[in-house]
Amino acid sequence: MAKLYFYYAAMNAGKSTTLLQSAHNYEERGMRVLVYTPKLDDRYGEGQVTSRIGVQRKAIMFDSNTDLLLDAAKKNAEQAVHCVLVDEAQFLSPKQVMQLTLICDRLNIPVLTYGLRTDFRGEPFEGSKYLMAWAEEMVELKTICTTGKKATMNARLDDSGNQVLEGSQISIGHHYVALSRKEFNLPQASPISYEEPDLEAMGLLPSRSK
Amino acid sequence: MAKLYFYYAAMNAGKSTTLLQSAHNYEERGMRVLVYTPKLDDRYGEGQVTSRIGVQRKAIMFDSNTDLLLDAAKKNAEQAVHCVLVDEAQFLSPKQVMQLTLICDRLNIPVLTYGLRTDFRGEPFEGSKYLMAWAEEMVELKTICTTGKKATMNARLDDSGNQVLEGSQISIGHHYVALSRKEFNLPQASPISYEEPDLEAMGLLPSRSK
Amino acid sequence: MAKLYFYYAAMNAGKSTTLLQSAHNYEERGMRVLVYTPKLDDRYGEGQVTSRIGVQRKAIMFDSNTDLLLDAAKKNAEQAVHCVLVDEAQFLSPKQVMQLTLICDRLNIPVLTYGLRTDFRGEPFEGSKYLMAWAEEMVELKTICTTGKKATMNARLDDSGNQVLEGSQISIGHHYVALSRKEFNLPQASPISYEEPDLEAMGLLPSRSK
Amino acid sequence: MAKLYFYYAAMNAGKSTTLLQSAHNYEERGMRVLVYTPKLDDRYGEGQVTSRIGVQRKAIMFDSNTDLLLDAAKKNAEQAVHCVLVDEAQFLSPKQVMQLTLICDRLNIPVLTYGLRTDFRGEPFEGSKYLMAWAEEMVELKTICTTGKKATMNARLDDSGNQVLEGSQISIGHHYVALSRKEFNLPQASPISYEEPDLEAMGLLPSRSK
Repeated sequence: MAKLYFYYAAMNAGKSTTLLQSAHNYEERGMRVLVYTPKLDDRYGEGQVTSRIGVQRKAIMFDSNTDLLLDAAKKNAEQAVHCVLVDEAQFLSPKQVMQLTLICDRLNIPVLTYGLRTDFRGEPFEGSKYLMAWAEEMVELKTICTTGKKATMNARLDDSGNQVLEGSQISIGHHYVALSRKEFNLPQASPISYEEPDLEAMGLLPSRSK
Repeated sequence: MAKLYFYYAAMNAGKSTTLLQSAHNYEERGMRVLVYTPKLDDRYGEGQVTSRIGVQRKAIMFDSNTDLLLDAAKKNAEQAVHCVLVDEAQFLSPKQVMQLTLICDRLNIPVLTYGLRTDFRGEPFEGSKYLMAWAEEMVELKTICTTGKKATMNARLDDSGNQVLEGSQISIGHHYVALSRKEFNLPQASPISYEEPDLEAMGLLPSRSK
Repeated sequence: MAKLYFYYAAMNAGKSTTLLQSAHNYEERGMRVLVYTPKLDDRYGEGQVTSRIGVQRKAIMFDSNTDLLLDAAKKNAEQAVHCVLVDEAQFLSPKQVMQLTLICDRLNIPVLTYGLRTDFRGEPFEGSKYLMAWAEEMVELKTICTTGKKATMNARLDDSGNQVLEGSQISIGHHYVALSRKEFNLPQASPISYEEPDLEAMGLLPSRSK
Repeated sequence: MAKLYFYYAAMNAGKSTTLLQSAHNYEERGMRVLVYTPKLDDRYGEGQVTSRIGVQRKAIMFDSNTDLLLDAAKKNAEQAVHCVLVDEAQFLSPKQVMQLTLICDRLNIPVLTYGLRTDFRGEPFEGSKYLMAWAEEMVELKTICTTGKKATMNARLDDSGNQVLEGSQISIGHHYVALSRKEFNLPQASPISYEEPDLEAMGLLPSRSK
């Protein structure tokens, strides 16, 4: 039984490095992999998976019209494929996540996906929403906030380094920083409207720190 | 730093048992817990968390209007609370999941939530969607399909034992069964429209089984 | 490919509860399990797996002479076995852990073991040493120290509640408590001789607390 | 509370890559790390951590006499250290693993260790035995056997590619390959003596494959 994996992390945790290492591990054993990356991410030139620690490789680009099941099935019929890897998997459409589940369930090929959980306002990406719904294995790649706490959220910064709270979901040009949820300040960033009670004024904020 | 945990599993994996054990562990050490359960789940009588292996305890009922942050903050001001536990957490509203993150981030109390990822059509529950987006720790409680494969999906069955594909998201009266994604047959069940290519007719289905 | 699992935890985390729930999950699906428990643990009567939250079931007792591979193979030949579960697995001999790996590798039956990692001095149990060496999956069942920190060590207490540092590895009559490694104080408890430098006197102890 | 992590994997899974990525993540946030590597591993020149995918960095060499607690405490007193990382951690002595626990418990600095669980005969390394006993977090870095199964064991090969079953525990000159436990054939390789029953001759081997 081949499984769908979702390796998730905040920005700059090392997702692409882990993908490149896993692809290398398969190839070193004489096994064939397909590496996919979405077309929009051309930070480092089109069709590349690039790690910040200085490793890269070519990848098959896909856009919102690509049928990943059909593409992998054709390539697998030409020459057996042992693993499918997808970078920046948050940008998959729900339909494409379903196609990845079928690469597992029909072709019996394991699929490793790597992506962010949430955008700069804390909203789940559509692709990630369905990866988290359907993956057999979810594995966190850990990274840290500058406070030393675990970083799970992705803040978008303006040129002065201030957190940006308005704008479109995808904006690759901006600078991003991984923060703990506490530093990120979810009630401020999220489009979900919640008027947070002033616990301090109500005398409900504990002085103790555990 | 207190964390938000999401313990997720398919139906009948033992989520309530694990919740009851964790509550017991805290209390055995002289620590105080709050156990919440949504009002709608009255299978075993209102305001109960009940495990299929025969353990149960009373729980605080909440409905869609309850502010869980405010409720926990008040109870914590009366007497220190060491852990908040939430059963059937898939039924939380997005706003209530935000309230739980603030029980961690403002009150510094760890929050353990237990729930399903997806409904009978494979769609993520709203509560689970945000728990998976914001939890610091996601822990799977494993269970098995009758085929021996890992079960991750929840099928709704009619009286003849056939999988039901239409209906409302919440229907506690029905019988449910945990299935692997392959047995569940996602393209058939999901509201996401995808015309699966006939790989067999196209000669793209491998005969080998890995 | 059947896997060997080691579910490990400190004392009183709920290992037996988790075992009983997993056995129940298999049986509920019409699948057959074998539950083993070592002969020495007769706290609750011989041949019982008993959970502190009030659930129990009969189990097959084994002693140091039992060949678990042969025993499971015979029972499997009579009627197909779908899962083997072992309580108090720290008391297995290395040879018996090897037998469990062969229940996976020869009979293709998954094996779930539940046990402690270390004894009252912080030394690994022989059984656990080999389970941690050979298991495909190691899963922690979490519990907490009275300080709120994660508990990973097992302190033996005398009648006055003081930590006992001398004695034999197995002493079921004593009272035990799960502690974090910091509260346990490893350099004091461990038979490994290490003269800890007095960092404070050397001016090397940071005042900050992170 | 700073934690001790043990990232374990079979040979060539990418342990050093993961270490280098984590060190990079800290430094990118302006935080200081100490990277240690044992003196014996001079495959790539002394005092280097080198990844097979082409990344490397200098590391502090230690031998069996190094007191890692004292060394880290001194360096931390000069300039605050935010993380300690140890490559090839299976070669630590038990005493040195205790020193690492004290870097967490006394200095409050997290420690990330990377290593193998077992040697070419399936025996746990002394360092790994105590890391698995005392680490708060054990995280597996996954890799695959040429059969497609998960690889957990490390076979030593002679020039003809045959598995070597005799020799000293440390022999960096040899070629190694990561195998699943089934391919590794534990009863043949292990120094633990177990006369495996001939289940086939006894009519106890199932024909079915699950």
